[in-house]
Formats: sequence, structure tokens, C-alpha cells
Amino acid sequence: MVMKRTVDGVRLSLDEVRALTTATLLRHGLRADHVAAVAETIVAGERDRCAAHGVYRLTNCVHSLKTGKVNPVAEPRLEPSAAGIVCVDADGGFAQLAFRTGLPPLVEAARANGIAALAIGRCVHFAALWPEIEALTAHGLVAIACTPSHAWVAPAGGRIPVFGTNPLAFGWPRPEADPFVFDFATSAVARGEIELHRRAGKPIPEGWAVDRNGDPTTDAAAGLAGALLTFGGHKGSALSTMIELIAGPMIGSLTSAESLAHDAGALASPYGGELVIAIDPAGILGDAAAGHIARAEALFDAIEGQGARLPSARRFAARRETVHDGIVVPTELYDALLAL
Amino acid sequence: MVMKRTVDGVRLSLDEVRALTTATLLRHGLRADHVAAVAETIVAGERDRCAAHGVYRLTNCVHSLKTGKVNPVAEPRLEPSAAGIVCVDADGGFAQLAFRTGLPPLVEAARANGIAALAIGRCVHFAALWPEIEALTAHGLVAIACTPSHAWVAPAGGRIPVFGTNPLAFGWPRPEADPFVFDFATSAVARGEIELHRRAGKPIPEGWAVDRNGDPTTDAAAGLAGALLTFGGHKGSALSTMIELIAGPMIGSLTSAESLAHDAGALASPYGGELVIAIDPAGILGDAAAGHIARAEALFDAIEGQGARLPSARRFAARRETVHDGIVVPTELYDALLAL
Repeated sequence: MVMKRTVDGVRLSLDEVRALTTATLLRHGLRADHVAAVAETIVAGERDRCAAHGVYRLTNCVHSLKTGKVNPVAEPRLEPSAAGIVCVDADGGFAQLAFRTGLPPLVEAARANGIAALAIGRCVHFAALWPEIEALTAHGLVAIACTPSHAWVAPAGGRIPVFGTNPLAFGWPRPEADPFVFDFATSAVARGEIELHRRAGKPIPEGWAVDRNGDPTTDAAAGLAGALLTFGGHKGSALSTMIELIAGPMIGSLTSAESLAHDAGALASPYGGELVIAIDPAGILGDAAAGHIARAEALFDAIEGQGARLPSARRFAARRETVHDGIVVPTELYDALLAL
Repeated sequence: MVMKRTVDGVRLSLDEVRALTTATLLRHGLRADHVAAVAETIVAGERDRCAAHGVYRLTNCVHSLKTGKVNPVAEPRLEPSAAGIVCVDADGGFAQLAFRTGLPPLVEAARANGIAALAIGRCVHFAALWPEIEALTAHGLVAIACTPSHAWVAPAGGRIPVFGTNPLAFGWPRPEADPFVFDFATSAVARGEIELHRRAGKPIPEGWAVDRNGDPTTDAAAGLAGALLTFGGHKGSALSTMIELIAGPMIGSLTSAESLAHDAGALASPYGGELVIAIDPAGILGDAAAGHIARAEALFDAIEGQGARLPSARRFAARRETVHDGIVVPTELYDALLAL
């Protein structure tokens, strides 16, 4: 037992993070198999020192449960589809158990066809996509994942929210190293980051958001009330549109605007779909795959060799520390979680 | 016959653009079937008023032919692969004919499996990807395409070129409208844009490039000698890394650094691979596909309704004019093309 209150906050081992998460979610009626799947995602957030994807998210999970916006006893179901497609109806539950349901047939379809897609529908999202990406790189597959969220982000040249924060995540298996993984919001920042600024009473940098009138703002609350901006101007805006389409209507799921309408003011987590594409390099290259995958290492060396960083390097480094040292949760947040 | 010299330049009909392109390429020994495929891409550039992808590119095509960096009599070949993958060995020729070779089996594989990928290897690239995207949306398919180029772009936090301009293109079929299409370089701008500034003796905006020492520059020549930057900071850099990987080693093709090494100072067009993913919404949604595709129109309406622009709107508008009015080529460029 590590749990210990200090001036910096409450220190917890990762097992204690899991126990806290599990107890909280069970207490609010989420079925045990969902709890197990969701807890692994929250532990992964803390383990990788991404506070915005850790136990902080429990508040929102519980809120989604309390408002009836997530089905706590959802039964994810595989649905018939073409040979390269795995469709999972999440039955209104959190995405994690639906992903676990779809993972084995997705891996199988990618191996059989070279490329396959998992289309999860009717799921509730509250977390990063990298745990799902890493589940595929662990099988030696290349993976791309994306999902809409709630319409909080204005298109380039506009001021009315149309897009979600719409994360795009990618993973590449590396034979002797942590996989290459990125997972970024196509908004200038994750909404959770602005929310953390609001809670901390800190201003946000320009370029993150506009207020209700479309004017630039450094006030976190005004930005949350107005619209976030995409990263990268019209290119980020185009990318976010793509995610709306391919993880929305293309898989029969909601756009971010439709998700927000479905929410109807409950302020619960986004509801809709998730698209995961998995590619087996051996389906393209046969026996030569391993040699070509190894050749990619020169690219990583060239990036790191000039002092630039690979996107997930900090997460993987954190992971090697937190497994021993545990993590620190701010005292106020910890007490709020106990009181949930 | 429209061809007419004016003070603004030389006015040509699109047929005259095709004739000029065809004559130029045939004169330099490119086989007729390649010429026909390449000419359609160059005509598409002029038709859509994208000067950087029009006849301006002929100079580079001819240079690639003269330096022996493209095989003028290449025979693109389909190679065996998994059911969802179409592999085309371009035999060192321009990408266009290889794409034409792979298109019918790609469409067939996407319809059969729901998702399929075309992996073109050993091809020479000089053009935008949108013509290939539009070839797929015309079949009612959703399409994603990307390719590395030459290593001209530094990673976020670095100063040594590692990435190409690495375009990412996407297309979505719209039942009663032009498709939604974007095609952007993951560099801050296309290298051709900086080259046009250099030729025009114009400075480039900050943020496009760094010089050899890694310092910001507004000098086009210094930027071309140093490194371009990606758009969108570390997110654009991550995206460009993904393109290096999935259209490079994943399909057995070269990275941008390897392409530049292969060029060995010839300054010819990039050599390597191209990845095109095609998705058939009907493979996911069955008979419900059309209804969901139609639902995406609300997203486009919400973007355009607030005065923001869809990425390809300007190109499609130009297309409706140039088919009647033709296009204007700067006199100096026109005369240079005749002298090639």
C-alpha cells in the first residue's frame, strides 16, 4: 500500500488507481465487465502521466452514468458486414468493452485481408485512443483510429462549433522498442485542457478558442462557451471534417453536432462512433515485411538524432517510472472522487 | 483554337493544354500510354487553376526524363497480395499509369471487402493526389491517399530535413454535388510554392522554412537550401511521420530521405510509393449507406452556412469556368515549355 497524503497531493500506486476507479464505477452501477475495461484506460492515463485522461475523467464517467447517457449494462454485439469490416454495436455503453469485443475479429480480418476496419457504433467516449492503438501494435499491426465528439470546434474561417475535438491516433509496431504512437486532438488543444485551465483559474493561450462572438479569447470559460479552434488552420479543419465523416455517417454514427444534440444539455460524454483501421504489413509485403519494418528505424533515428522528440516518448518514459513510483493526484480531486 | 498571346500571358483552351503537354512529353520519349495518363493530371491542375500543379510541372517531368530518373517505357504490374490489398509495381515510371492499372482491382476489392488499399511501389511522383481521389469518389467510394517525397522538411523541434512535403488527400462522394476533397501538403506549404516565390523573386512568409542553420528565413532560396517546416507544429510533424511510414516501409517503398539519396543530386521528382485506401460505405452499412451518406450534407451545410469554405470549393468553381474560358499561362513559362 502506497497511498499517502502529501503537500503535493495524494500518492497512489497504479493498483490503487485501479482500485479507486473500480470502486467508484461499481458504486455507480456500471457492470463489472465494463468497469474492468474502463479502469484499464484510466490506469493507462495515470500510468503515462496524462492527468487529463486519468482519474480526472471519473467525474465525467459518473456524470454520464447519473444522467442516464450511458448504458451501464450494455451488451456490445458484432454485426454482419463485409469481410474486411468488423461492426460492433456498443449498445449505448462505454467504448472500451465494445473495442474489446471487436479486437479479436479485427486482428483476424486484418491478417486475412491485409487491411480491415473496426466500426464501433452507439458508444460513449471519454478517453484517449492510444490504449486501443497499442492493443493493435502489440499484434504487429499498423493502426489508425479516430472519433468525433461533441461540436465544440469551429471550422477554419467560421465561428460556430461544428466539429468535435476529433482525435486522430496512429500506431506503428517497432520490433525492439516501444511502438511509435501519436494521439492528438484536431482541435488546437483537448477540451479537457481548457477545462483544467478553468478549474485552475488560469488564462488560456491565444489560438485555442474564440468566444461566443467569434472573437479570440484567453478566458477559459469564455472559450468553453464559444468555440475551440482547430490546430493548423484550414488543414486541421479539413482533417477534422474527415474524422466527422469517416467515424460518423460512413459508419452509420453521429456527427459531433448530432452527438451534442443527443446530449440535450446533460453535459455527458460524447455519444457516437469510432473507426479503427488495422493494416498487416505482411499482407502487403509477405515475408519481406519484417525487413521493411526494421528499415523504418532509420527514420526514428533521424528524428531523435537531431534532438527532436517522438510523439509518445514522454508517455513511455513516464510509464517506466510510475509502475514503481505510482502517481500523485491533487488532493482536491482525490477528495472529490471519494465523494462521488 | 483559343491560343492567344496577351499582356497577361498566353491564353489556352484545356484541349490546347493537353496538346502542349502531350507534344512535350512525347518529344522527350515518354511512351504514349504514360503521356495520356500524365497529361490528364496536368490538365486537371490547369483546369482547377492550381498553377503549381499544371504545365509548370512539365519542366520537372522533362528533367526527370532527361536525367534517367524515370522509366519512360515502364510496365506497371499487379503483384500478388492479400485479398484487401492491391499491389502495383510501377517499374520506375510515373505514378499515373500505375494508378490506372491498380484502380479497377482496388474498386473491386473495396466493394468485396468493404475496405481495401492500393500500394504503388517504385513510382515517380510529381503531382497532386486529388485526381486519384476523385477517380475513387466517382465510384461512390471514400478515399484516403498519401505519399512521401524528397526529404525537405524538418521534424518539429529539429532542423535537419527528414520528411517530404508528404501530401495527405481525402475524398468523400456527395450524391448531388461535387465530392468533398482535400489534398494538402503536411509541410507548411508545398515546395512548389516556395519555388514559385523564388522564381518571382518574392520573399516567403515566416513559418514556411528555416535556413541551413535552422534559423527562420523569408528568403525562398535559403529556405529551399535549408528545411521546410511542417504545418501545425508537432501535430503536423506526427502526421508527416505517419505518411513516411505507411506510404514508405509499410508498402516496401522508400522514405523521403531514401528518395533524396536515390536522386543523388539529379533534382528529379521523388521516387517511392503511394498508398491509397478505399472504403465502400455499403460494406459497413449495407442498404442504409445512402441514407447515412446523405446525412453528411448537414455537416457541409453547417460549414458553408457560416461563411467558411469547403477545401475544394475554389477548385470546383474554377473548373466550371476554365472548361469554357481556358486558362492563362505566363508568357515566360509558355516559351520555356516550347523550348524544352
